Amino acid sequence: MKIVLDAMGSDSAPKVEIEGAIQAIQEYGYEVILVGDEAVIKSELSKYKYDSTKLTLIHASEKIEMHEPAALSVRRKRHSSIVVGMDLLKKNQADAFISAGNTGAVVCAATLSLRLLPGIERPGIAIVIPTLVGVSMIVDVGANIDPKPMHLLQYGIMADAYCRYILHKPNPTVGLLNVGEEDTKGTDFIKETHMLLSESKLNFIGNIEGRDIYAGTADIVLCDGFVGNVILKVSESVIDTIVKLLKNEIKSSIIATLGAALASSAFVALKKKMDYSEYGGAPLLGVDGRCIISHGSSSPKAIKNAIRVAAEAKEQDVNKRIVEELESY
Amino acid sequence: MKIVLDAMGSDSAPKVEIEGAIQAIQEYGYEVILVGDEAVIKSELSKYKYDSTKLTLIHASEKIEMHEPAALSVRRKRHSSIVVGMDLLKKNQADAFISAGNTGAVVCAATLSLRLLPGIERPGIAIVIPTLVGVSMIVDVGANIDPKPMHLLQYGIMADAYCRYILHKPNPTVGLLNVGEEDTKGTDFIKETHMLLSESKLNFIGNIEGRDIYAGTADIVLCDGFVGNVILKVSESVIDTIVKLLKNEIKSSIIATLGAALASSAFVALKKKMDYSEYGGAPLLGVDGRCIISHGSSSPKAIKNAIRVAAEAKEQDVNKRIVEELESY
Repeated sequence: MKIVLDAMGSDSAPKVEIEGAIQAIQEYGYEVILVGDEAVIKSELSKYKYDSTKLTLIHASEKIEMHEPAALSVRRKRHSSIVVGMDLLKKNQADAFISAGNTGAVVCAATLSLRLLPGIERPGIAIVIPTLVGVSMIVDVGANIDPKPMHLLQYGIMADAYCRYILHKPNPTVGLLNVGEEDTKGTDFIKETHMLLSESKLNFIGNIEGRDIYAGTADIVLCDGFVGNVILKVSESVIDTIVKLLKNEIKSSIIATLGAALASSAFVALKKKMDYSEYGGAPLLGVDGRCIISHGSSSPKAIKNAIRVAAEAKEQDVNKRIVEELESY
Repeated sequence: MKIVLDAMGSDSAPKVEIEGAIQAIQEYGYEVILVGDEAVIKSELSKYKYDSTKLTLIHASEKIEMHEPAALSVRRKRHSSIVVGMDLLKKNQADAFISAGNTGAVVCAATLSLRLLPGIERPGIAIVIPTLVGVSMIVDVGANIDPKPMHLLQYGIMADAYCRYILHKPNPTVGLLNVGEEDTKGTDFIKETHMLLSESKLNFIGNIEGRDIYAGTADIVLCDGFVGNVILKVSESVIDTIVKLLKNEIKSSIIATLGAALASSAFVALKKKMDYSEYGGAPLLGVDGRCIISHGSSSPKAIKNAIRVAAEAKEQDVNKRIVEELESY
């Protein structure tokens, strides 16, 4: 198993990428190709001990910044870590590509370089989230902010295959995110998508609401990339806000501080459950290759888990399953 | 001050409405007109002691259920508590109308009966949320799921007046919710709205992201009603999920249970801060009358606070301020 990792992607690059890569090498024995500024990476790497036969370094002289426009930067920065890394995957020199960098640029580079699977019109980012009853997937969380109903059907079919073979859910339920459960509610886009999903072979359970997501009402939650992106960022923000407010409240009382110390085991267990980094990265569904997108603020553990997710996609040959499922339509 | 309260609206109607009304009468001395099924309300009222000179009962033989289509049910159910209550406001027999019932039906009845303020094309629901640094408003959270850019500008102008006179923020900042901060990001709808807001007299700070909402980056967050509705429901769901997971974790350990008991003061303080019921209800901005929409799962305290919010809108004459601000454009 050989994974290409954009070493310049995250907010704390290349430190967290290097630590995550070394953890993955030690824990899983995979090979990792780090792509980025050679001097910077070498200097950082010198601080660690690792199996050098498993870690390769490929130089990329440019970097696409977070704020840069996606399509333009991919076309102009041919020597960026994203473009160079994606090319390695394209040339079959690796099994998967991972980046915690500019999401739009990764989606664009993957689409241009790897091309789309037959029958897919637009790629979608799928993210695994923890729920009260296990885990669910949300597609799309930002690749396609103005999709057509057909795109959401395609996301549903791809997520169905992913759920079956990676999350081991035999007959995953599919819900369409809406402002109400009734078929008559929603925008024209939602009503058309509802009709397409109803006529499909998916295990479609109808419209679901924002409150159903973390209740785990559906295994797969379909929405446009604008709404999906807002959901992710708002969810993270609510959790951060609660933690900050709680810390302030607790600091203001000695008894509460003592209590919080005793209750801390519960907080640790909870944090693990709510922790996105446990799932590492979001697969970009629909491109002809394995591409995992990680959060800009990823920890080394998140990068390590993204590498695990990428390896699972290869082992289970998810794209072959997706193509089979698409052909059956 | 005389407030019309839909007694049949909430999930636990008319119990919570009656308790909330009695609390408001006792605490603020306002008069409340309860509208709904006379027999049911009388039977429930008989359990309480209250100042009967302050509480009137108006019979409404029908009820619009939560799942009923908004426009159709308002036209067909002329004797419903929502339509009858709104008519009382229209006829100047009260200062404001409050309902925790079918939101779409309340918006529709208010628009048909009260009509819109001059210069306003669509009403919008504004909700006050707690943030790390105080409170902010989100408009729209569900009245208008497929708005035009001009509608969001109108929401901004109305929310600006509301913030100045009710929330006492002298120069409120306005943010446009988007998937990124850059001007070039977002759908055509977002880009057009961004241009309108940039050219306006509002204190527009540009695009903001989902994570900025609870950080309090903007005093006013503008978004379409679909996205706003999802934000509200997802936020509530994240909080509920955290509380449930934490309870499960804590139950599984004696030390953690003891700790949680000691830390409970912090939880209570936190809950108060995060508690939507402290803010009671969401004003429906843009209709020519005072209309407050409460959550279907409102507590008596939330109803009491909705009555307070309605009274403040009357005292500060928010609609007059809105019209003045619109005329200055």
